Amino acid sequence: MTTIEAPNSAQQTLDLGPARSLVCRECGHQVPLAAEFACSECFGPLEVGYDFGTVRREDIEAGPQSIWRYRNLLPVPSTVDAHPNTDPGCTRLVRADRLAKALGVRRIWVKDDTGNPTHSFKDRVVAVALAAARELGFKVLACPSTGNLANAVAAAAARAGWESVVLIPSSLERAKILTTAVYDGALIAVDGNYDDVNRLATELAADHEDWAFVNVNVRPYYAEGSKTLGYEVAEQLGWRLPDQIVVPIASGSQLTKVDKGFRELGELGLVEQSPYRVFGAQATGCSPVAAAFKAGHDVVTPVKPDTIARSLAIGAPADGPYVLDTVRRTNGSIENVSDEEVVEGIRLLARTEGIFAETAGGVTVATAKKLIETGQLDPDAETVLLITGDGLKTLDAVQDRIGPRATVPPSAAAVREALGL
Amino acid sequence: MTTIEAPNSAQQTLDLGPARSLVCRECGHQVPLAAEFACSECFGPLEVGYDFGTVRREDIEAGPQSIWRYRNLLPVPSTVDAHPNTDPGCTRLVRADRLAKALGVRRIWVKDDTGNPTHSFKDRVVAVALAAARELGFKVLACPSTGNLANAVAAAAARAGWESVVLIPSSLERAKILTTAVYDGALIAVDGNYDDVNRLATELAADHEDWAFVNVNVRPYYAEGSKTLGYEVAEQLGWRLPDQIVVPIASGSQLTKVDKGFRELGELGLVEQSPYRVFGAQATGCSPVAAAFKAGHDVVTPVKPDTIARSLAIGAPADGPYVLDTVRRTNGSIENVSDEEVVEGIRLLARTEGIFAETAGGVTVATAKKLIETGQLDPDAETVLLITGDGLKTLDAVQDRIGPRATVPPSAAAVREALGL
Repeated sequence: MTTIEAPNSAQQTLDLGPARSLVCRECGHQVPLAAEFACSECFGPLEVGYDFGTVRREDIEAGPQSIWRYRNLLPVPSTVDAHPNTDPGCTRLVRADRLAKALGVRRIWVKDDTGNPTHSFKDRVVAVALAAARELGFKVLACPSTGNLANAVAAAAARAGWESVVLIPSSLERAKILTTAVYDGALIAVDGNYDDVNRLATELAADHEDWAFVNVNVRPYYAEGSKTLGYEVAEQLGWRLPDQIVVPIASGSQLTKVDKGFRELGELGLVEQSPYRVFGAQATGCSPVAAAFKAGHDVVTPVKPDTIARSLAIGAPADGPYVLDTVRRTNGSIENVSDEEVVEGIRLLARTEGIFAETAGGVTVATAKKLIETGQLDPDAETVLLITGDGLKTLDAVQDRIGPRATVPPSAAAVREALGL
Repeated sequence: MTTIEAPNSAQQTLDLGPARSLVCRECGHQVPLAAEFACSECFGPLEVGYDFGTVRREDIEAGPQSIWRYRNLLPVPSTVDAHPNTDPGCTRLVRADRLAKALGVRRIWVKDDTGNPTHSFKDRVVAVALAAARELGFKVLACPSTGNLANAVAAAAARAGWESVVLIPSSLERAKILTTAVYDGALIAVDGNYDDVNRLATELAADHEDWAFVNVNVRPYYAEGSKTLGYEVAEQLGWRLPDQIVVPIASGSQLTKVDKGFRELGELGLVEQSPYRVFGAQATGCSPVAAAFKAGHDVVTPVKPDTIARSLAIGAPADGPYVLDTVRRTNGSIENVSDEEVVEGIRLLARTEGIFAETAGGVTVATAKKLIETGQLDPDAETVLLITGDGLKTLDAVQDRIGPRATVPPSAAAVREALGL
């Protein structure tokens, strides 16, 4: 508990569970918990710092089948699930023996986040952002987005009875507009590209003190939601860390938070502190972090994205340098794959495991394949692949490549002939 | 355990768990467990009969987070989850206070089956069909379908490493073709309507003794999968039955199996045998069971379907008479709603609870509203609504009704003006 200046300028007592402060990732400067995202000393990004106390496996296991079983590891009140929310998380960890065989490795697990309420991992981060935003005194849930995040914010706000403001580029595909508009928040199409929309969000966040732009002014809280992917993988493996994990990179936040989750579990004694390697996956058409990794750089040079993996198409990834740190520290690496390989990755996962991933999932699978073929990923070690979104949302990416085996007249003989029987 | 003539004509010992025989729902004639679906005496439909022995809550609660926690109540081997399968079930039961308020009733729960692996309840029935089919000696998983079932069969077969044969009308929407084709089974488009496709499936099932058409020759096992919806609702309510439940009607099988699940739990002492009322929901454009109910008939007169709720568009529902029995026995009723009301139902659920249902879910919500408004459903009793499929699959149904609030230039002032601020 600590006291801050809340958005509504009313002095109040905050309960954000084990969270104790915001800490600058660059200079280490600490500030009280608040709706801040940049360090007042050096403009570095702020991250949530904690005092966890004792956290026990049995308390987690006795919790709900959602991310709230990890509430004592998140910046949320202990009563978080008393408020209506989408209760994301506890998605399947699938032992993928057929995929492993196809890739020529010993053991692969697929963390299938398509099972979340709006079918992407964004439900996790938005749920944490909403819980923190409520406590911080915000009244409106908002975001700039081109897809999964828009769905998650609009749905979470509807469920909670909050207003939402979702800004999208007006050129967005009709299907992605519909899947947000159905929740009936304030969906605003902006004549401009995603950069324009993002800039507008930052401006509006400054002007409207009760609007929580989940990925702008409450970003430190929002980002922590991705830790739950790491927690769940470890718990589902029977409270242990995997040897290797492949994570797609957009802003890079998810990769660093999965690593943070693994480290916290080790430090708290919830798992053995065994070594693990973190690998990053990008589409070649937007691979600034992979390029920096391969060049041995510490900074990431922005690019103009051009890839079908739109949910990963962030040309100037905010967490790029931290991704490089994480990957190098854990002895992992970063690879990138062509759009052609992305589609093949989607098809390989669907064909072998019956899981239909969005393009980002295709990036992860195809990157894993490349990492194996190039000897970067150990085929005898156990590997987890993060599948973070649903193929139903990116049908356009596969529509020219797949279809019926045959079209036949309505006769059994015709079916047999088509099947070569 | 019993001995039958398996499809491959090899004598073998069957393990279908507590299942003991197939029983004719019309004349009560019993036959050994086998790949039969019609009574040899009277051509009535066969249903699985059981000898459950003792089943305890704690054994179920200690089971996996999937329908297999109920394996001792299903026609599957006790080792069922040792084989790769999609592990469906254990979807959210959402307390829907905002929907309840909008409808003017005390308490509503939404059973949200969009969280299943291919985002509909069909994953449940297909998983049970596959498990039984494996035990019965089949080698190929097959179905005629126009949507959700095709997705579920193709995905389940891919995951299990089985061949699949999925027959669809060639006129099916491109999106529904893609979401099945991606799993790379034998997807065959047939130049004909769904009736033609269905007839073809029956013919092929007779010709190919190792093809399990899930909803034809292994239908008695397949249908039992829907019992798990009833089991989960009761367990998620804290091991008790709800007062009222609203279930969409296609073939009618799901409604009768939810009721069967509730009755079994009561008979086994797993819940108190409290009275409950079962309500059926149809789209007016395909409402033969509602019509029969209202006319006081015991038989259902087939209709030619014309509704946007395509997953419910079965004009000659096989289980229609049993639906009428169930609804009358439990003091429920059956209503039907227009396509306009279906879309409003989808929007109401999305707006109040952040859950985006397919058209069948819109039918359920709109029917609940009508049942309340007409005094058929008790507003002071607790009601469960079954949402059995995902809105991402029926975007065409809402595409002309929803969209952005406004399209604006990239300026904060323009956004504020659009929001009336």
